[in-house]
Amino acid sequence: MLALARRLLHARSYAHSAPYPRPSHHCGALDARHDGARVVLAGWLLPHRKVSKALSFFPLRDSHGTTQLVVQLGADVDPKAAHELAALFDVPVESTVLVEGEVRLRPQNQRRPGPAGDIEVQLKSFTLLNPADRNLPFLPSDTQNTANEDLRTQYRYLDLRRSQLSANLRKRSKVAHIVRGVLNEHDFLEVETPILLKSTPEGAREFLVPTRTSASASARLASDHDKPGPLFYALPQSPQQPKQLLMCSGGVDRYYQLARCFRDEDGRKDRQPEFTQIDLEMAFVSWGGAVDGEDPWRIGGHEVRDVVEVLIRRVWSAVENVALPDRFRVMTYNEAMRRFGSDKPDTRFALEIVDLGSVLPPYELTALRNSGETIECLAVRRSQDPEFVDAALACPTESDAERIEITSSNASSWLLNSHLLRALRPEDGSDRGASAVDLLSLQPGDIVWVAKRRDPPQGGSTALGRQRLRLADLAESRGMSREIPTSDPHFLWVTEFPLFTHADHDKDFLAKGRWSSSHHPFTAPAWQDIEALYAGRFSEVRGQHYDLVLNGMEIGGGSVRVHDAAMQDFIFSQVLQLNDREKSSFNHLLHALKCGAPPHGGIALGFDRLMSILCKTTSIRDVIAFPKTSAGTDSLFKSPSPVDAGVLEQYGIQAK
Amino acid sequence: MLALARRLLHARSYAHSAPYPRPSHHCGALDARHDGARVVLAGWLLPHRKVSKALSFFPLRDSHGTTQLVVQLGADVDPKAAHELAALFDVPVESTVLVEGEVRLRPQNQRRPGPAGDIEVQLKSFTLLNPADRNLPFLPSDTQNTANEDLRTQYRYLDLRRSQLSANLRKRSKVAHIVRGVLNEHDFLEVETPILLKSTPEGAREFLVPTRTSASASARLASDHDKPGPLFYALPQSPQQPKQLLMCSGGVDRYYQLARCFRDEDGRKDRQPEFTQIDLEMAFVSWGGAVDGEDPWRIGGHEVRDVVEVLIRRVWSAVENVALPDRFRVMTYNEAMRRFGSDKPDTRFALEIVDLGSVLPPYELTALRNSGETIECLAVRRSQDPEFVDAALACPTESDAERIEITSSNASSWLLNSHLLRALRPEDGSDRGASAVDLLSLQPGDIVWVAKRRDPPQGGSTALGRQRLRLADLAESRGMSREIPTSDPHFLWVTEFPLFTHADHDKDFLAKGRWSSSHHPFTAPAWQDIEALYAGRFSEVRGQHYDLVLNGMEIGGGSVRVHDAAMQDFIFSQVLQLNDREKSSFNHLLHALKCGAPPHGGIALGFDRLMSILCKTTSIRDVIAFPKTSAGTDSLFKSPSPVDAGVLEQYGIQAK
Repeated sequence: MLALARRLLHARSYAHSAPYPRPSHHCGALDARHDGARVVLAGWLLPHRKVSKALSFFPLRDSHGTTQLVVQLGADVDPKAAHELAALFDVPVESTVLVEGEVRLRPQNQRRPGPAGDIEVQLKSFTLLNPADRNLPFLPSDTQNTANEDLRTQYRYLDLRRSQLSANLRKRSKVAHIVRGVLNEHDFLEVETPILLKSTPEGAREFLVPTRTSASASARLASDHDKPGPLFYALPQSPQQPKQLLMCSGGVDRYYQLARCFRDEDGRKDRQPEFTQIDLEMAFVSWGGAVDGEDPWRIGGHEVRDVVEVLIRRVWSAVENVALPDRFRVMTYNEAMRRFGSDKPDTRFALEIVDLGSVLPPYELTALRNSGETIECLAVRRSQDPEFVDAALACPTESDAERIEITSSNASSWLLNSHLLRALRPEDGSDRGASAVDLLSLQPGDIVWVAKRRDPPQGGSTALGRQRLRLADLAESRGMSREIPTSDPHFLWVTEFPLFTHADHDKDFLAKGRWSSSHHPFTAPAWQDIEALYAGRFSEVRGQHYDLVLNGMEIGGGSVRVHDAAMQDFIFSQVLQLNDREKSSFNHLLHALKCGAPPHGGIALGFDRLMSILCKTTSIRDVIAFPKTSAGTDSLFKSPSPVDAGVLEQYGIQAK
Repeated sequence: MLALARRLLHARSYAHSAPYPRPSHHCGALDARHDGARVVLAGWLLPHRKVSKALSFFPLRDSHGTTQLVVQLGADVDPKAAHELAALFDVPVESTVLVEGEVRLRPQNQRRPGPAGDIEVQLKSFTLLNPADRNLPFLPSDTQNTANEDLRTQYRYLDLRRSQLSANLRKRSKVAHIVRGVLNEHDFLEVETPILLKSTPEGAREFLVPTRTSASASARLASDHDKPGPLFYALPQSPQQPKQLLMCSGGVDRYYQLARCFRDEDGRKDRQPEFTQIDLEMAFVSWGGAVDGEDPWRIGGHEVRDVVEVLIRRVWSAVENVALPDRFRVMTYNEAMRRFGSDKPDTRFALEIVDLGSVLPPYELTALRNSGETIECLAVRRSQDPEFVDAALACPTESDAERIEITSSNASSWLLNSHLLRALRPEDGSDRGASAVDLLSLQPGDIVWVAKRRDPPQGGSTALGRQRLRLADLAESRGMSREIPTSDPHFLWVTEFPLFTHADHDKDFLAKGRWSSSHHPFTAPAWQDIEALYAGRFSEVRGQHYDLVLNGMEIGGGSVRVHDAAMQDFIFSQVLQLNDREKSSFNHLLHALKCGAPPHGGIALGFDRLMSILCKTTSIRDVIAFPKTSAGTDSLFKSPSPVDAGVLEQYGIQAK
């Protein structure tokens, strides 16, 4: 074996492909119990060698950990054996070697924590399985000088040798297994839905997939398309329609899938063109009301809530060793916006917003009400951690907010003198006194941000909500865990969103001034608001939608769906005012509802985001084996790439 | 609740969206133990009603089975309650209803086998959750007159109500769960690989995915493409390269995934443009030889074989209640071709092919050898089942074979007088006598097919192999289970395929007369044949490839891969003669091999085919929730479909 190895060092040869003994253990799986055992290990040689005349050390890494190899070359070793072992000194780092040796317990003072930290392996012989180039682009084991991300992405197969990344992949696999186990226990069936789906008329954010002309021809034949030319599938942004059709079928009453989804939008930080969601749907979900008068979850979909809470609790228990509460907190959209200025509030810390409507003078109050607004404030007290007050002073103010430092001279008049309130008054408006100070008990040295917002709230955040997060980020970066505690996971359900919106700029290019669905057009109205829906009071209608929020991040969202074809048709036609062509792409769904569709609802959890939280990394690229850049490029596989005109022709397309 | 239901029958209304009690049981989950229990069930009303004055029966179906509802309207029932229950008679079939009632044990003689067959539910009240149209395209419960496949495909959500289809989806989910469980036990990590991958230079059978111009612009910027124009991803035909790169990384040493794969080829029966494979790969697999001299598995990859056998045994035990043998049979490609005329032989029945080389006269033998051929025969004996002999007589003969009926006059001369042998002789060749009859002991009334084949064998089947299957199919269709037993699953590994081929017509349009890989270019040669490889004797090189065959169907294939960059480069350049552009698409893989890639190997099992076998259906469409036609069209979602020029423009493409 050794002769072979040495030959390889000098002349790269195919002979190392010959049979070799199977590894008996993983490097990271050895411990004190193996003391004295003969073992065969296979792994990668790390650069952190300690070479001396008598005793040398070579760390050997595999996907389970690192073992220290010891090579003894002293006078008491057979010279021939020593000579052969010495060849290991010439093997390039990151080469794959197979070693045979004997496990030995380390002296007490040399034991390290972690896998295989108690032992070392006295080398008896080795085989070079595959030598690595001496000029690698970077050394993955060099955690002191991590190569830049571009280089690491291009050579992802090297970067994945970093123990941090391989641990992330291991954790991801573990969590996926737990999730599947829980859903399997709860009688969910895993069903695969098509990835080659139908393009929508607008084609927004979709990936198209042209088909070859021969397939196109038969498809055209089959479906009587009047239009000549190429035909396309589209990749799904989510399996929403297939999973609803599964529920309509009744053949599957609980569905789940770790579903790959696709979205063609670039320029958003930390988005991937393909991503994974834990997608589930249940038939016969409740429509609210009937469960428990005390329950703040007043919409339907309790069954979805129940199983998601079990699932998340199980994951946090297994991965984080944290026992989450039996029930997660529930808050309505309105309350979240009012108290935290966000529809995904970070509830790990208080710092709540206070509505000032009750302390405004009547004139200003009326002016605000007439414009559909209210005024509110966020205060930091001098009595809080002095460093936190410093952070508040250093924190930039949101453009729509006004920051006021309270002094002895403005303590009773700051609100009336604020720019916001002044702007409400006619030029000659007199100062009629207000009691804001009473409400807040502000003292000189306190800091207040004041801002207006729409009332009832609209959209996903308010100026003070953003101010609150800005301050929290700054405080967290300065290590203020007392004011801004960040260790505990705070799960929160946000419910009772408005069903329709004018305020989503993302959707406006499709809505063109019409109402759009806050989430998607299949979301059911709260049953208490059905009358308002049919009466045309669309702004009053709350949806049976629920978002799951963790520490201020939305990690999932779902809803009870419309199962009544007439109601779905009303929403398409009367509320969203889809034209016939837009509506026709939902014909199959409308018909499926008419075939006795059961009430149903579900949720999708962002698996990449969930894993990035569990892996304590800020980038979802760290939890994906082969990620793309935020621009959608893949520098490892070199995609996307140009395609020859001749190939494109087979699909009936050409470059424009 | 009832008043509401009746209102709904007359005026479709939104009010049925109000809260309703949760179902307490599944229809199919009730049995004798529930006798006397009050239950709430939700399900679909079936048409098989028995209505009479006093006692009516309504079957109610959900995804778990069917329960018989009993409605009592006789004189001893409260008239008001009876009136309300009678409204159920007007509810359209396939409507979704919620019922409350009392479980009652059926009289002994009325019990049916199967779920809920022992009981019935005495109806107390019902709520119409969602009425179905009275004019459904077809009734899924009508198993006597199944609608035609086009109609069922278009309304797949109705077809999935057929208990056969929903049982298939349930079984598929169960098998997926078992597979994941086994692989998880064996330390495999589930890793997701990209679906948006790189197009290959040839673009054969790929689906392309154009990207929007903004993404293209930044991609071009990042990768210095010299060519202007649109950029494309491609959908993977398998995750072969990503999984090999994972192994090269060493960060994951055992990978698996139930991977979606894509192939743009139409016209093949029972192929789907997207399909699922159980895909796995292992680092440090053996390279053969060292395990057990008696083992017919002489190539490497024992570790893959071991885990697949465990996995298949577990599935067959759980789903079929069949204990498969501890080890599956192993046969070399040469033996399979020689004895069964197929590289995926159906070994459930004997009917073996006999080589006639040893009984040929020297002249003919030499002529055959010189042309690289041999001659062989397949015999059916008069002593076999007379119906089988009839089938043999009725069976059409393959075009390359000759059928000879043995009579008393040709019993000693049939071979020499066969057209095949005559064609080998010069015009004046004399009959020198041959001993074929001695070898086969043929009797008058026996039937023999005789044919030539390449020696050593090439390709996937021989004329006699096809003849053998043709005869078996005919015999099976005539119910001859003694000669052609089909009940037991016969698993078989086929190994030692030739590594390179000239005989694959599918590949020839790429190979253009060059050698092509029998499987893929990453398959390792048998280590015993490495010298032949480098010496240029490519036809002699066996690959470390293994196919898993079940009852004559290939259900999976895999190999030990090349891990030596120099060997891989030699195969690309010297054997396959790829040009620089073709080779450049493998640059990242070649470089990854140079970074100390471990020996590795894996397999992919066709999950759809496996499930169709387990579900005892001939079409994989029956085990896919939303399948496409063999032409790749989807009549439910109406895809593929045309796309507006304006939308295409965003991708920088247009119709040609």
